[in-house]
Amino acid sequence: MSFRLLKKDPSGARLGELTTPHGKIMTPVFMPVGTAATVKAVTSEELESLGAEVILGNTYHLMLRPGEKVIEKLGGLHKFMGWPGPILTDSGGYQVFSLALRRKILPEGVRFQSHIDGDEYFLTPQRAIEIQEALGTDIAMVLDECTAYPATPEEAEKSMRLSLQWAMQCLEAKKREGMLLFGIVQGGFYPDLRKNCLEELASHNFDGLALGGLSVGEPPEACYAIGSELAPMMPADKPRYLMGMGLPEDIVEAVGWGVDMFDCVIPTRNARNGQLFTTLGPIQIKHTEYREDPRPIDENCSCPVCKKYSRAYLRHLYLAKEILSSRLNTIHNLHFYLELIRKIRVAISGGRFAEFKKEFYAHTRIRRDS
Amino acid sequence: MSFRLLKKDPSGARLGELTTPHGKIMTPVFMPVGTAATVKAVTSEELESLGAEVILGNTYHLMLRPGEKVIEKLGGLHKFMGWPGPILTDSGGYQVFSLALRRKILPEGVRFQSHIDGDEYFLTPQRAIEIQEALGTDIAMVLDECTAYPATPEEAEKSMRLSLQWAMQCLEAKKREGMLLFGIVQGGFYPDLRKNCLEELASHNFDGLALGGLSVGEPPEACYAIGSELAPMMPADKPRYLMGMGLPEDIVEAVGWGVDMFDCVIPTRNARNGQLFTTLGPIQIKHTEYREDPRPIDENCSCPVCKKYSRAYLRHLYLAKEILSSRLNTIHNLHFYLELIRKIRVAISGGRFAEFKKEFYAHTRIRRDS
Repeated sequence: MSFRLLKKDPSGARLGELTTPHGKIMTPVFMPVGTAATVKAVTSEELESLGAEVILGNTYHLMLRPGEKVIEKLGGLHKFMGWPGPILTDSGGYQVFSLALRRKILPEGVRFQSHIDGDEYFLTPQRAIEIQEALGTDIAMVLDECTAYPATPEEAEKSMRLSLQWAMQCLEAKKREGMLLFGIVQGGFYPDLRKNCLEELASHNFDGLALGGLSVGEPPEACYAIGSELAPMMPADKPRYLMGMGLPEDIVEAVGWGVDMFDCVIPTRNARNGQLFTTLGPIQIKHTEYREDPRPIDENCSCPVCKKYSRAYLRHLYLAKEILSSRLNTIHNLHFYLELIRKIRVAISGGRFAEFKKEFYAHTRIRRDS
Repeated sequence: MSFRLLKKDPSGARLGELTTPHGKIMTPVFMPVGTAATVKAVTSEELESLGAEVILGNTYHLMLRPGEKVIEKLGGLHKFMGWPGPILTDSGGYQVFSLALRRKILPEGVRFQSHIDGDEYFLTPQRAIEIQEALGTDIAMVLDECTAYPATPEEAEKSMRLSLQWAMQCLEAKKREGMLLFGIVQGGFYPDLRKNCLEELASHNFDGLALGGLSVGEPPEACYAIGSELAPMMPADKPRYLMGMGLPEDIVEAVGWGVDMFDCVIPTRNARNGQLFTTLGPIQIKHTEYREDPRPIDENCSCPVCKKYSRAYLRHLYLAKEILSSRLNTIHNLHFYLELIRKIRVAISGGRFAEFKKEFYAHTRIRRDS
């Protein structure tokens, strides 16, 4: 088994260790998103020094540009982008759903046109595995259909059955020794469908399971309801991955449900839009109040940006649309997320995650109650 | 005197040392351009590790945004942007000429509207010095009028006389102890006007002199003719600065005329546009021939980008419009320029600059003969 559960906190939060071909990952873990063979605005050296342990690559983007064959010829994604640690790739399912043009779903796979140049592609479960193997990923994801929101029970069940079928085909198609493969639980916002899907996936030989199809436009309560009910039912001896979430408070909540792995574009994308996370809640750096503010973004932060630069300078860079703005903001936000995860691990390790959660909410203005 | 001439090569090339409030600079020197309190796409740590010794800031941009008062309140430009070494600022004259709206030149100064928001400003010689002193610059430049090209002899003389008058007013206005102030030779493309201007400036107490008003749309021959005739006439005991030039071959040429200081946006701007300098000449990284090219940009280069990344990866980042493309390309190009200057220094120091120049042209495809 590639996963070892090291500790379970009374609250349900878990501490674990996942072994991949490019090294071990401690869990809970946050995976910065490196869509197009780069975590936007930062280098792999910076990711390492921020303490990132694993990053995520997007199969959809990479198959379109530069193409997985190019990356394979150049020695695989790790070598191509100069990242020595583990890489998880999604299967492309979510981006086909959210970005591609003229999408047509067939039992064999999904036909679509590239949003970049209109070229036509046909992504099957077998192709999704073939591409991820060509990229040299450490953790591959099965091809799934991201169920639309809202969906009737019939639509959600049909979609979930298709995802299940594709998941089995991915498992069969997998050739590369060592590469881990995770299944994805779908079923929309119908708990019974989700449970059926989970049971079926749990009875097969996946290396981990993920909750997919969340954060697709539903109200936050619906997402929390599914996550908090399903996560604790997922096999305890395999890593549990909540795909595409979320805000710092989402991570704190979901760790309490027993989730082990997270990815989200929020720290990086919001950084480029001038939203910076602090221990007291997020701030918008463009605000006039920071015009002459000599303080760092967060006086409690030990990141290289907070050690050196003022809010006034970061506001100036943002307003002047300087590339350095995206760089420094991204470094700060990634540090915030990775530091949050480190604090969570320490809390679980000490058996005091419930206390940690209480403190977190006591200090942080959050965007919604939960 | 702040300048020491250490060595003169038989060719006319010079080796020197300029002392500023923030440290010594070896000359010849190349100054990366940090327009808006950042050299675009790179951090001050990266500039230091590339061996940059002095950077240039643009008074025009900084007075408009964030405003010199904000920077002064935050402890000056060095502290604001986290750059510990010397800074040279231009006076704003060139950008008023090239960027500002509704420009009106009066004997007292120049009235213009900001290209950012249309706000009206009045930049006088006294204001130009006041702003540069507020920024805390190490080397200030006098306010000058950048003579238009083409200009009649009468227009060029009138413009040169105005620049001379402003130069004297700047010298008078200067208050801050230690800050160096350079005069700027104008006179269009009329050698006699240039010589008159130079003589007049040379008789006053400037810490260095610059050739301005070049690279303003004239044919390269005209620029070279003025530069090669005027530079050797500039006072030998003061640093000679050729403003806004140029290509690597321009620097090699001008060092031979006895020029000591250079600045140019070419390495940084062209990097963002995908042009990369190599010891064999410049390349355009977007070209299809680099699609699967595993080699570094330049096999003779020791920069951190060439040590780690392939042309194929850099091409991909450029086509995907990734921020990392601008970062890595800028680091490579700045390294190329700074390394060129280091090689030039070694050659002058060994008394073999003429040989160096011959070798440089033997290996490098250049854009024009000279």
